[in-house]
Amino acid sequence: MDVEHYMAGLGRAARAASRVVAASSTRVRNDALLAARDALHGARAELAAANAEDLERGAAAGLAAALMDRLELTPARIDTMLEGLTQVAGLPDPVGSISEINTRPSGIQVGRMRVPLGVIGIIYESRPNVTVEAASLCLKSGNATILRGGSEALASNMAIARCLTAGLRSAGLPEAAVQVIETRDRDAVGQLIAMPEYVDVIVPRGGKGLIERISRDARVPVIKHLDGNCHVYIDEGADEDMALAIAVNAKTQRYGTCNTMETLLVHAAMAESLLPRLGEAYAAAGVELRTCERARQWLPDSVAATEEDWYEEYLGPVLALRVVDDIDQAMDHIDIYSSQHTESIVTRDHGRAMRFLREVDSSSVMVNASTRFADGFEYGLGAEIGISTDKIHARGPVGLEGLTSQKYIVLGEGQVRT
Amino acid sequence: MDVEHYMAGLGRAARAASRVVAASSTRVRNDALLAARDALHGARAELAAANAEDLERGAAAGLAAALMDRLELTPARIDTMLEGLTQVAGLPDPVGSISEINTRPSGIQVGRMRVPLGVIGIIYESRPNVTVEAASLCLKSGNATILRGGSEALASNMAIARCLTAGLRSAGLPEAAVQVIETRDRDAVGQLIAMPEYVDVIVPRGGKGLIERISRDARVPVIKHLDGNCHVYIDEGADEDMALAIAVNAKTQRYGTCNTMETLLVHAAMAESLLPRLGEAYAAAGVELRTCERARQWLPDSVAATEEDWYEEYLGPVLALRVVDDIDQAMDHIDIYSSQHTESIVTRDHGRAMRFLREVDSSSVMVNASTRFADGFEYGLGAEIGISTDKIHARGPVGLEGLTSQKYIVLGEGQVRT
Repeated sequence: MDVEHYMAGLGRAARAASRVVAASSTRVRNDALLAARDALHGARAELAAANAEDLERGAAAGLAAALMDRLELTPARIDTMLEGLTQVAGLPDPVGSISEINTRPSGIQVGRMRVPLGVIGIIYESRPNVTVEAASLCLKSGNATILRGGSEALASNMAIARCLTAGLRSAGLPEAAVQVIETRDRDAVGQLIAMPEYVDVIVPRGGKGLIERISRDARVPVIKHLDGNCHVYIDEGADEDMALAIAVNAKTQRYGTCNTMETLLVHAAMAESLLPRLGEAYAAAGVELRTCERARQWLPDSVAATEEDWYEEYLGPVLALRVVDDIDQAMDHIDIYSSQHTESIVTRDHGRAMRFLREVDSSSVMVNASTRFADGFEYGLGAEIGISTDKIHARGPVGLEGLTSQKYIVLGEGQVRT
Repeated sequence: MDVEHYMAGLGRAARAASRVVAASSTRVRNDALLAARDALHGARAELAAANAEDLERGAAAGLAAALMDRLELTPARIDTMLEGLTQVAGLPDPVGSISEINTRPSGIQVGRMRVPLGVIGIIYESRPNVTVEAASLCLKSGNATILRGGSEALASNMAIARCLTAGLRSAGLPEAAVQVIETRDRDAVGQLIAMPEYVDVIVPRGGKGLIERISRDARVPVIKHLDGNCHVYIDEGADEDMALAIAVNAKTQRYGTCNTMETLLVHAAMAESLLPRLGEAYAAAGVELRTCERARQWLPDSVAATEEDWYEEYLGPVLALRVVDDIDQAMDHIDIYSSQHTESIVTRDHGRAMRFLREVDSSSVMVNASTRFADGFEYGLGAEIGISTDKIHARGPVGLEGLTSQKYIVLGEGQVRT
């Protein structure tokens, strides 16, 4: 197969389809999503067969158990995909909304209209349900998508794509509005991220290695989420019960998520009374503590943290903990070590709360709340395609709005420039 | 000179300075801008001497007359720089503004706060006044800047930078908030665009060749303006006098600007009465017409357009002109040939006006107005750092807001996630 030729074909078809989707009505796009849902429901047997093929191939290739688990399309996971489509169809359509229109001294009226980005390339790893999630969010926001899932999930993804295509067809939209790359050839990714004429933005979802590689090689913009080294800072005078509840929730509510706290910073004045309580709570939860020297006065059983610990995204039951002199030292620590994902302060002091909100340069900055809230659903975006740790375009949870842009519109009555 | 080491030093200093600038008050940043203005006014003799040095070197190197003209810092141009600083100081500060804050079912309140991007790299060509324009917009929006002007303007740019630095110092801001690269070594550009750890975004200003090269090689996001192949479409039933006025203004008001019309599309039903009038007007203005076959019935003296003409950004007194069957053919033409900068329809029909506004995928889309209005000042942005033909982050004229981003802020009262 000539991968370059194949990918250019997908790109051209996506570009043409994106014009039609962008100009389609909300109702037509919703009809396509609901028809795709019905098609998926009707194709449960085909999905199971395709998935069994992937699982068999995965087992033969000796895929790790965790990967095998992520690959499996259980009936419950298919139900979740169907619910997801219903939900995305029900979200408000961002496309076409017009911001305040102002009249200028020249007499022209100037506003901004929200428009799709065009063609979005999604690169992800083993979970086949991402195919539905990503395609539905892109379609709802008026974009065409080219999807590149894990090669171990290809049969499942192709079966899912057939249902999505059926939905598009039944709503009268071009089938090329959603395309799954039907080759395992790795060069396809290299092509996908280097066709600025056909692809407007790439959204990679997966491990840090994948995302770094794509960011380095891409010739189109990338909306990316690297890592989540999130911090909670417990300020002097904070409510101790609140601090304890947030510190425990932010670490232990789920270990593997990007908005899980990885380092806890505690004001020195709070150490004596709070650290023993924290130590007990974390011990009860089975969390290993890696601590600075001062903290170990009150946490004598904890392990000494190394410089690397402050950078680490553990994604597991391990927490780095440091005692700091004041909010400045806490913010300096965050400035140096944070991945700029999510940081939270627990405080009673209004001035320090406002300083933290203003000065901490992360995609989400919180006061008196668990970092675990950094999530598109919790924020009310309805859905999310990922969490961006970039600074331009979209920061933090990216919902439908993040898959659109705004163009200027000008309404005149014959004005010319003098 | 070890360029890599030198550039990393600038980057580190800019990153540190950006933290201080981001946290500074509006008043302090305005004070710095006004103090820089006063310093520039007080340094007219030094500026003239430095500029003379550049001009002398340019003459010796045989610089083209147009470049020599752009390089010259006349007293009037210095006045314009001073006015620019006063004006930017007077603009509203975008930093810190908070969007609507919504309360979520969990009880947390979620909003977005506008924040600086961080460190902005500006790469431009000979005009030294860009140094002041770019630095002042970046500083006003709370960012640090690293500036790389044309090597032929280095002495002028360094003299200007000393004044900007004096302004920063007098306002108590770090001098590294504005840094001019003090080497002519071309590797400095390569370094600047490949330091994602220190530079958040690159804004290149200059010819298409420069911008394409930078976009291709950059390892950080680029806010770019490629070319402006702008169209006006005169619809069936349009007011003929209005159509004529807009078509003449969009082409002839200034030839060298990116928002100048380069191709005029005329509905077939308008050709017989309008084309002879257009032909006369353009002949009077000295504009050469390159036309399709149908148009030449009424413009027998015009030149036949080639396929290349439809793609061309003439930036001069030449216009491509095509007769089209209807709005669909006009939009298809725009879809194929436009650089997605600015397009305008002249029409009386509401439905077609709305279709054009919705379906044309350009950074500015207009109804009954000259394309020449696509400009930050005309749109009320107060100033512009450039016009983006990108789709993500900022489209169209980029003012202070385009140099900022929004982070999420969460206000809780101890909420944890369940």
